Amino acid sequence: LSRSDLNPNHTSPLSLARAFCSATATIRATLFPGDGIGPEIAESVKQVFQAADVPIEWEEHYVGDQIDPRTQSFLTWESLESVRRNGVGLKGPMATPIGKGHRSLNLTLRKELNLYANVRPCSSLPGYKTRYDNVNLITIRENTEGEYSGLEHQVVRGVVESLKIITRQASLRVAEYAFHYAKTHGRERVSAIHKANIMQKTDGLFLKCCREVAEKYPEITYEEVVIDNCCMMLVKNPALFDVLVMPNLYGDIISDLCAGLVGGLGLTPSCNIGEGGIALAEAVHGSAPDIAGKNLANPTALLLSAVSMLRHLNLHDKADRIQNAILKTIAEGNHRTADLGGSATTTDFTNAICDHL
Amino acid sequence: LSRSDLNPNHTSPLSLARAFCSATATIRATLFPGDGIGPEIAESVKQVFQAADVPIEWEEHYVGDQIDPRTQSFLTWESLESVRRNGVGLKGPMATPIGKGHRSLNLTLRKELNLYANVRPCSSLPGYKTRYDNVNLITIRENTEGEYSGLEHQVVRGVVESLKIITRQASLRVAEYAFHYAKTHGRERVSAIHKANIMQKTDGLFLKCCREVAEKYPEITYEEVVIDNCCMMLVKNPALFDVLVMPNLYGDIISDLCAGLVGGLGLTPSCNIGEGGIALAEAVHGSAPDIAGKNLANPTALLLSAVSMLRHLNLHDKADRIQNAILKTIAEGNHRTADLGGSATTTDFTNAICDHL
Ligand SMILES: CC(C)[C@H](C(=O)O)[C@@H](O)C(=O)O
Ligand SMILES: CC(C)[C@H](C(=O)O)[C@@H](O)C(=O)O
Repeated sequence: LSRSDLNPNHTSPLSLARAFCSATATIRATLFPGDGIGPEIAESVKQVFQAADVPIEWEEHYVGDQIDPRTQSFLTWESLESVRRNGVGLKGPMATPIGKGHRSLNLTLRKELNLYANVRPCSSLPGYKTRYDNVNLITIRENTEGEYSGLEHQVVRGVVESLKIITRQASLRVAEYAFHYAKTHGRERVSAIHKANIMQKTDGLFLKCCREVAEKYPEITYEEVVIDNCCMMLVKNPALFDVLVMPNLYGDIISDLCAGLVGGLGLTPSCNIGEGGIALAEAVHGSAPDIAGKNLANPTALLLSAVSMLRHLNLHDKADRIQNAILKTIAEGNHRTADLGGSATTTDFTNAICDHL
Repeated sequence: LSRSDLNPNHTSPLSLARAFCSATATIRATLFPGDGIGPEIAESVKQVFQAADVPIEWEEHYVGDQIDPRTQSFLTWESLESVRRNGVGLKGPMATPIGKGHRSLNLTLRKELNLYANVRPCSSLPGYKTRYDNVNLITIRENTEGEYSGLEHQVVRGVVESLKIITRQASLRVAEYAFHYAKTHGRERVSAIHKANIMQKTDGLFLKCCREVAEKYPEITYEEVVIDNCCMMLVKNPALFDVLVMPNLYGDIISDLCAGLVGGLGLTPSCNIGEGGIALAEAVHGSAPDIAGKNLANPTALLLSAVSMLRHLNLHDKADRIQNAILKTIAEGNHRTADLGGSATTTDFTNAICDHL
């Protein structure tokens, strides 16, 4: 992970303002510790940030125990207001409570905060061996529409349909984000992933928008890759790719596939970008209820996501320091948690990171 | 590849009849050599079949040079009739000609012949090293509906939609095929791949049908895996899977991903199963126009597909003999084609297989 990869931000007015203040003032950021192992890994982030003297004051919000009518979900209106006000947030895993009449927590956040791009850097961790070396790619996923429209009907008994919606506006927006990201992060190529040979209208429109934006970035190589072929190439030779941009469901699939190449969702950061410069960084792994409260969880994904939040705030020195400490701790290998084959507790691992700061 | 894996068939009346005749009579099978490298790799199949004394007489059909109004594509009505009459066929790569007003050749075949299940065994080839050892799984893809409905509209300017259609009938049919396949091929587990957490109605119906069928096969373990998680698990540890069954697009994606694990589409067979016991085996790789006519193509995918056709006809002795010769030739390594890092021509490779018969 290079310094630039964890900066999901192109310079927004918000982040410039923050950068300006950051030497002196405390920055408020929303923290959703989430469920299951969430509170433990959030604790790890708080400890590391404190040890690194990061000038952040957390506004902690938990998932409510009843449906808030204003959000139609267990997320409270106040917690969403907190992210809107602060402009930045960090989110642990949230298991959507089972039952009817409410929306998934993740989808509610994306929708209510208009988090239109999901950025996931995926890089081999030095010293942590998988089948792949030198993976270094970024998936940028359209995060608001496509197969996630929620529009589904029973046509007649035994025949159901789901609608995939692609709009010019959302496609241009995420394409613009991807090319700007590539340009500002020293990346050379953007690959648009699609299945326009089958979905000519929807994926066709997505590609058309990508092409339009590509024309404005002649210094970035642009290519189009069919999703099935992309997945085959990714497992054969991920070094063929640099920045990938794609509609919602393909992004869901490919970002997890890529995470798998370097060790899984426990090791990869994620950041959601919204209109107006909002950034909500998040660990995308599950809440692992089986090991919750046992001090066994690996906080790496949340820590690296927190680093991407710092970069969004232009706090690059702090971000570098923390990121290096995380990578060093993993590379050394003697303080790894159980998921990485070690026997360290969450606390051991966190302390080791603090020692490396 | 075990003997059973290349038999995509559950005992259909057709194949029983064929088995009965096969000792004495010649069997007619349709052959679509296809475009690009198609004719060369089809030649290889013909040569190997002849050397192994396979009692098959090929009815060769080529893609036409104008649209046949009865098929709305460049495939002739006669060629489809040939497959219907023979009940079995083998197909090389077909590049759909560019232009408007006709249907994709692959989709026309699936639709016109009602090829409802696409079966792709995916196994590590002994002696051919990739990042993965001991891959041994089967993807079974619903092949007629889902995201391939062809139903797309512009709602208003800049807003387009594609319809994904899932029916109870097609879902039950492919689920039944998958469980029967598992049972008759000594497989222990069927995993249904879905995204029902988002597409509750469509993928939800697919899962409901799989569950119904699973109840009839208590000896087969049944599980449900979300597609993003499935792709991550596949790249981390493909040995977790056995038989996978899924809607059309997920099958398109996952079957290519799995092929990538063992070396790519040039090495993996595919067979399409239709109502009434039709089987159309096919190489699913491209037509590679850049090397067409140069005697450089690797015929393995088409050869292994031809083997699966033989198994469909219950010609297991011939199938075993040919399959072993192919695997031995690849394992030995001194007659590999360029795509596998060797310098053998298609003819060299084919001759080596014949020598191993
Ligand atoms: C939990 C689920 C709704 C979600 C998604 O499909 O987007 C998850 O897989 C993700 O990638 O954030
Ligand atoms: C060529 C294309 C239409 C086809 C598909 O999407 O089904 C191919 O990828 C396949 O898997 O056979």
